Amino acid sequence: MAYSPLLQDLLEALRCLPGVGPRTAQRMAFKLLEDDRDGGRRLVSAMQQAIENISECSRCRMFAETELCWICGAQRRDHGTVCIVESPADVIAVEESASYNGRYFVLLGRLSPLDGIGPDELGLHLLEAQLDEGSISELIIATSATVEGEATAGYLANLAHKRNICATRIAHGVPLGGELEFVDSSTLSLAISGRLNLGD
Amino acid sequence: MAYSPLLQDLLEALRCLPGVGPRTAQRMAFKLLEDDRDGGRRLVSAMQQAIENISECSRCRMFAETELCWICGAQRRDHGTVCIVESPADVIAVEESASYNGRYFVLLGRLSPLDGIGPDELGLHLLEAQLDEGSISELIIATSATVEGEATAGYLANLAHKRNICATRIAHGVPLGGELEFVDSSTLSLAISGRLNLGD
Repeated sequence: MAYSPLLQDLLEALRCLPGVGPRTAQRMAFKLLEDDRDGGRRLVSAMQQAIENISECSRCRMFAETELCWICGAQRRDHGTVCIVESPADVIAVEESASYNGRYFVLLGRLSPLDGIGPDELGLHLLEAQLDEGSISELIIATSATVEGEATAGYLANLAHKRNICATRIAHGVPLGGELEFVDSSTLSLAISGRLNLGD
Repeated sequence: MAYSPLLQDLLEALRCLPGVGPRTAQRMAFKLLEDDRDGGRRLVSAMQQAIENISECSRCRMFAETELCWICGAQRRDHGTVCIVESPADVIAVEESASYNGRYFVLLGRLSPLDGIGPDELGLHLLEAQLDEGSISELIIATSATVEGEATAGYLANLAHKRNICATRIAHGVPLGGELEFVDSSTLSLAISGRLNLGD
């Protein structure tokens, strides 16, 4: 036996964290026990609080411990524009770009009938109800550029068009500072087919 | 504000883990909240149990939730040989080499007078009491090959010699499979000065 039972439990439990293998788990556990039990206690309490109290925003499905998340609850934002993303991490990424002032709708997945993920699992009845309210003027569809992401985008665009709401898709193409030589060919082909007219 | 307060707390608390920066903390927190709240609950409980119950073995200072650690408590081991290491992780490393059947003594540091770490901080009174008992026949000194590690080794050897106990130091040199070309020069110089006579 290489570890005591409680230590073994801790090492196994730590491995539920993404990117943590046996070696990292040992390093984390030993660091906590040797130098930073107070940090560990803070982590225990923060994790407990988060797990038990954080649920979904009733409007956009982002993480929230209150009825509305901090974005849906903000006065200053443009609540008529909704950016549809697949995951909470995508919300943070768009927020960090500091280029968007509307609100979000988080699908928590993408349409994938083979995995049993249909419109209901993505909370689309919630989105449809919001579209029916009539206060949304634009749907920015920011699902990923994968087969399922595109299918989801098509489905969402259809929901918007049926209600005469404008649906847009974020641009896909060569990233800023990306050298053509190193861009993968699917992105490049997308960038060429989606070329913009520079006017005359 | 990019996160809700509870989420922000969790992200900050996660950063007490070694190797976890803001990006990894977000990935961990979102993964737990999205897919694995049960894993998170198990982690909370394992961490709490470990932090509150794991203390030091009264004989070797290794992590233990019982009076003696699982090594000091084992019948089958050679309790007359003591390997002295700097940290609990070193114990695990030696155990994994499956080349040692004695017990350990964990210094939880190394002599460093400038940082206020003297013999008392390393629990050497405990070790001296064990050496005085007369049941220890060999002290294998496995402190690191740094200036402080060497100073600590010298101090420990002196403790053993005063009581006519054999003190040995683990060998330092070129690692197995290490090509001379890529070995750092201090290691190489140590390997040359510590060369062994192959007999005639």
